[in-house]
Amino acid sequence: MGIKRYMIKDTNEISLSKLDPGEKGTFKSKEEASVETERLKERLAELQDILFAQKKHSLLVILQGMDSSGKDGTVKHIFSGLNPQGFTVTSFKKPTLDEAAHDFLWRVHQKTPPKGYISAFNRSHYEDVLVPRVHGGLSKEDLKRRFRYIRQFEEMLAEEGTTIVKLFLHISKEKQMEKIQERLHDPKKHWKFDVSDLQEREYWSEYQKAYEDVFRESSIEKAPWYWIPANHRWYRNYLALSIVVKTLEGLDLSYPKLDTPTPNISELISPHH
Amino acid sequence: MGIKRYMIKDTNEISLSKLDPGEKGTFKSKEEASVETERLKERLAELQDILFAQKKHSLLVILQGMDSSGKDGTVKHIFSGLNPQGFTVTSFKKPTLDEAAHDFLWRVHQKTPPKGYISAFNRSHYEDVLVPRVHGGLSKEDLKRRFRYIRQFEEMLAEEGTTIVKLFLHISKEKQMEKIQERLHDPKKHWKFDVSDLQEREYWSEYQKAYEDVFRESSIEKAPWYWIPANHRWYRNYLALSIVVKTLEGLDLSYPKLDTPTPNISELISPHH
Repeated sequence: MGIKRYMIKDTNEISLSKLDPGEKGTFKSKEEASVETERLKERLAELQDILFAQKKHSLLVILQGMDSSGKDGTVKHIFSGLNPQGFTVTSFKKPTLDEAAHDFLWRVHQKTPPKGYISAFNRSHYEDVLVPRVHGGLSKEDLKRRFRYIRQFEEMLAEEGTTIVKLFLHISKEKQMEKIQERLHDPKKHWKFDVSDLQEREYWSEYQKAYEDVFRESSIEKAPWYWIPANHRWYRNYLALSIVVKTLEGLDLSYPKLDTPTPNISELISPHH
Repeated sequence: MGIKRYMIKDTNEISLSKLDPGEKGTFKSKEEASVETERLKERLAELQDILFAQKKHSLLVILQGMDSSGKDGTVKHIFSGLNPQGFTVTSFKKPTLDEAAHDFLWRVHQKTPPKGYISAFNRSHYEDVLVPRVHGGLSKEDLKRRFRYIRQFEEMLAEEGTTIVKLFLHISKEKQMEKIQERLHDPKKHWKFDVSDLQEREYWSEYQKAYEDVFRESSIEKAPWYWIPANHRWYRNYLALSIVVKTLEGLDLSYPKLDTPTPNISELISPHH
């Protein structure tokens, strides 16, 4: 299954209602996908090892989506095979007082990955355009400016060596209700239930429109958006992993060579004869 | 003495060799300037108090200049009257390994002032264009790109509420030698002597040209450069303070009002009758 199909390009045309959150690709069964997903996890770990050794590139994976779309689950499943020494996740919540006293990119810039590392953002600076777009508080011009800052910021990161992948987890409104109910009924998931999720659900269609704006304004070549059908967790995980792996395979990753000639080991061990 | 004379505007024409580092303005004596400088320090403290109370604006003062041009001394003299709770200084040295693994604006962005605060940068992201311009390591295109990132970054900060003032401390090559010798002969100044300053001195004219590039590429309306004649410490301090004070006076600073009607104090004290 090619990932190109999920890259958001023709951004003036984008309409989320035409993209099926229930897609399952060409897999015959969930089990078939699982085998493939495990293989991709191993491949990702291999690629991370080279990335870390080479210290030339870094990778930033931005996860966005409605409440209950599976951002936490995606992070957990696709990155659990990584060496934690070269990987960080940051969850961006409602800004603290200190964060709100700075420009909205301030807290995000700090968490960008250094060379050799992979970072995931669970929510991101896109909340700072989505929320005011839905709930007000910024003028149209202010929003335009923020989008411009985002494009400039991401382009700068990309040109300075950070490959950016932006994943939108696309679920249906019905699926969201199912998941909210899971949270209410499964004691292991109670902690994830937040009554504000139900309030935000009232703004479903405004958020969908806000996301379409996001794609129009920020799906740039150097930092493309992908939409991920996310009603089925297993397909979501498979596809997100595929995109991350394919992206890393597109870089010129290779283990660095010794920059001195290979020493003669026997000489090193017994230097006195 | 108006500060406009020192704002760098006609950037295509800028030639540092035509700007006199020995200027002393219209003062008849150092003592006359000192009186004025003290008055300005008090005024700055007043303005900082309002800035801090209002939490609407922030101020970033960027200090650049050749070795021994007086960056440390300027920070010490002009900001010593401030409330330290609302003020920070950051000295940017050679990047650490961790800093060098990120884009060059990463460490700088972290230190930008939150609303209500004044921050000073002793050296800054401008070192990341000056040093490669003089010592090589970046192509012409890479340098151009960095200048573009700087302009975009500073414009974003400015539009999001940070007023930026950039001060170039301009000394003569002879004055620099005098100051290096002071460092060698005064036991209280030994610690400031660094043999690399003598090595860098060999690149004097290349640095002057690099600074002219900086002015051409980054003297933008929202973040102007000022040149400060810095051969005379007292004039340097007076002028730098003047610029900072005038800049703050140009903002709409005012103490915030109570947002509820003034309570009747006697009622608050004895609420039960």
